[in-house]
Amino acid sequence: MKLRDPLDHALGHPNSRYSVNTPALILDLDALERNVARMAATMTSFGRALRPHAKSHKCSRIAQLQIGAGAAGVCCATLDEAEVMAACGLRGILITSPVTTRDKIDRLMALVAYAPDTMIVVDNARNVEALSQAAQSSGALLAVLVDIDLGFGRTGVLSYDAVEELARRILAARGIRFAGLQAYGGHLQHIPEYSVRCEKTRAAADFVAGAVERLRACGISVPLISGGGTGTHAIDGQAGPFTEIQAGSYIFMDADYNAVAYNTADSWPFEVSLLVQTAVTSSNVAGTVTVDAGTKALALNGPRPQVATPSLAGSTYEFSGDEHGRIKLAANCDTPPLGERIELVASHCDPTIAHYDVYHCVRGNTLVAVWAIDARGRRGPLPTAAGC
Amino acid sequence: MKLRDPLDHALGHPNSRYSVNTPALILDLDALERNVARMAATMTSFGRALRPHAKSHKCSRIAQLQIGAGAAGVCCATLDEAEVMAACGLRGILITSPVTTRDKIDRLMALVAYAPDTMIVVDNARNVEALSQAAQSSGALLAVLVDIDLGFGRTGVLSYDAVEELARRILAARGIRFAGLQAYGGHLQHIPEYSVRCEKTRAAADFVAGAVERLRACGISVPLISGGGTGTHAIDGQAGPFTEIQAGSYIFMDADYNAVAYNTADSWPFEVSLLVQTAVTSSNVAGTVTVDAGTKALALNGPRPQVATPSLAGSTYEFSGDEHGRIKLAANCDTPPLGERIELVASHCDPTIAHYDVYHCVRGNTLVAVWAIDARGRRGPLPTAAGC
Repeated sequence: MKLRDPLDHALGHPNSRYSVNTPALILDLDALERNVARMAATMTSFGRALRPHAKSHKCSRIAQLQIGAGAAGVCCATLDEAEVMAACGLRGILITSPVTTRDKIDRLMALVAYAPDTMIVVDNARNVEALSQAAQSSGALLAVLVDIDLGFGRTGVLSYDAVEELARRILAARGIRFAGLQAYGGHLQHIPEYSVRCEKTRAAADFVAGAVERLRACGISVPLISGGGTGTHAIDGQAGPFTEIQAGSYIFMDADYNAVAYNTADSWPFEVSLLVQTAVTSSNVAGTVTVDAGTKALALNGPRPQVATPSLAGSTYEFSGDEHGRIKLAANCDTPPLGERIELVASHCDPTIAHYDVYHCVRGNTLVAVWAIDARGRRGPLPTAAGC
Repeated sequence: MKLRDPLDHALGHPNSRYSVNTPALILDLDALERNVARMAATMTSFGRALRPHAKSHKCSRIAQLQIGAGAAGVCCATLDEAEVMAACGLRGILITSPVTTRDKIDRLMALVAYAPDTMIVVDNARNVEALSQAAQSSGALLAVLVDIDLGFGRTGVLSYDAVEELARRILAARGIRFAGLQAYGGHLQHIPEYSVRCEKTRAAADFVAGAVERLRACGISVPLISGGGTGTHAIDGQAGPFTEIQAGSYIFMDADYNAVAYNTADSWPFEVSLLVQTAVTSSNVAGTVTVDAGTKALALNGPRPQVATPSLAGSTYEFSGDEHGRIKLAANCDTPPLGERIELVASHCDPTIAHYDVYHCVRGNTLVAVWAIDARGRRGPLPTAAGC
């Protein structure tokens, strides 16, 4: 296959996919929509809810698409993401990390006044107390989930005793209500071998099921049990205690998930919809070209970005500093000319996206929309007087 | 030393350093100003010009500070950075990577019409031709430097023959003029041992000196020879062909440069002025706390971020996903409470900064200004009709 000439495209078609300012995120809307529909159908078939994670896309427009396909709400990793989602009309927000500074707790109360069904997780009795005090001051009723650590050692409580103690504290406190449990195994999602991932995921789910039993034995009902991700959604969906799944990356896919087996028989039901488009800036070293995407354009975690441009099949990308990458050309590839556009599958989609301000949305080779990554970034308070 | 209580600070002082929205970039203006002054004085003592690199700070306000201290202009890694700098009144812009797509060449000509002393590098005869054609169409006279590869294999020409050929093509072409040479050794800056860095830097400088001789023997004058960085500025400043140094990171410093010996006798004359402030979100695992800064808040390249908060001396940071980090507490440290602010020295400053929208500028514990990182990010053309 001959590489399309990007200059002709850009000149002939002002709405060309190849007219964007490189490096740029390209989002294939057809593939995105298929991924959204497939996950929605899968969760329906399992009889579970889906509350997709916005930490991946940080884009209210995509969250709306997921809600339109039946999602129960939207997960957010940060208060900043949640504020943007709420302001854009999204509801059913679950903030999946504890909010612990005084400033953020105050902001959380303002958010709950605006979007009353917003939920937060806790893993610490002092945080329960702080949330209760703030909620009482603001007159809010905040829904709180107890966060369970599935062995990652990041956030969450470690024992059934701690689950019960925190649930009881929440039930006893004013201004907050006990909404259920969260248990997310970030360390489980990318285990490459399906059998290992399956075994560890089921063990984790059993641990969560035990926590639910413990609470129910105490007469405490557990309306919501939220967890799971793209890597474990089909395991957690088939069996186990989760009432809803928090998957995020499935809408995009990346080199990270491309290196993970879906199961023992099938390939992933999700397509790569997200690419980083870069352009050739130098070609003086035989067998390689330099492109304008480096560590400020592609996250370093996960496997290396993959070359997606069909005519360069077999070529590989390597980082060459903050602003540059090197494409090692496969033996049968012609050297692409200066300015040629090359598209890459991101290493890990979430932190790659966090580098950009917009998605360049395409259908085929046509640029059809530009969607703001409106929940990226954060801005603190301005000083009240100039003093610099 | 007792850790300051961030909540008291935030409550007592609305302009507290500890009132920012974590994770956040903290910029110590006193240290920044000392770094700017020290590099300016060093370059004056060497009799060389300084054209500091804006790829590090991406902030017109800091570029203005450097110009105020005598800098000859500003280097930019991308056209996007250059456009912002020019729009903010900066002049003497050198774009240090080739610009090769048709769209960007057109934008470059618009930039040169606006800021006529803007310079660009080339490493390819076809790019010379494209720039010349565009310059003739636009009526601009564009200053062009030949980029020399010092062994990094990223951009630049590889031989004296190629230097001479490109210089002659530039001299023969209309719309562009030959302004000199660029030779930047990105691979030299972070060599930890001074003797090795010195030896390789001098060998690279000798190669550049040979290129200058070759051109002068052809009767071609070489007004500008631009190169060097923070890691080699004192070596390239003391001897060798460079008329100006492109250092960028010296204003901030980072864990990367903290791991590099300044020379055989002295410590770095530059202080760490840039910190990432993060807050404790969880503390259920003995000997550790979880903080709200992960791979979306701190670049992964370079050594691990370093804990800078004095009361946590000896504690270490490790990444724990995109949104979280783990602080392993030194044996003698009390566990900091939830919400406590902890400050970190960035792994590598440039790609860390590219994650943020603003610097929170402090003097001591007082937040005195918020400076936009106005040259981060990029936005492509909007589609001319809705079609999504």
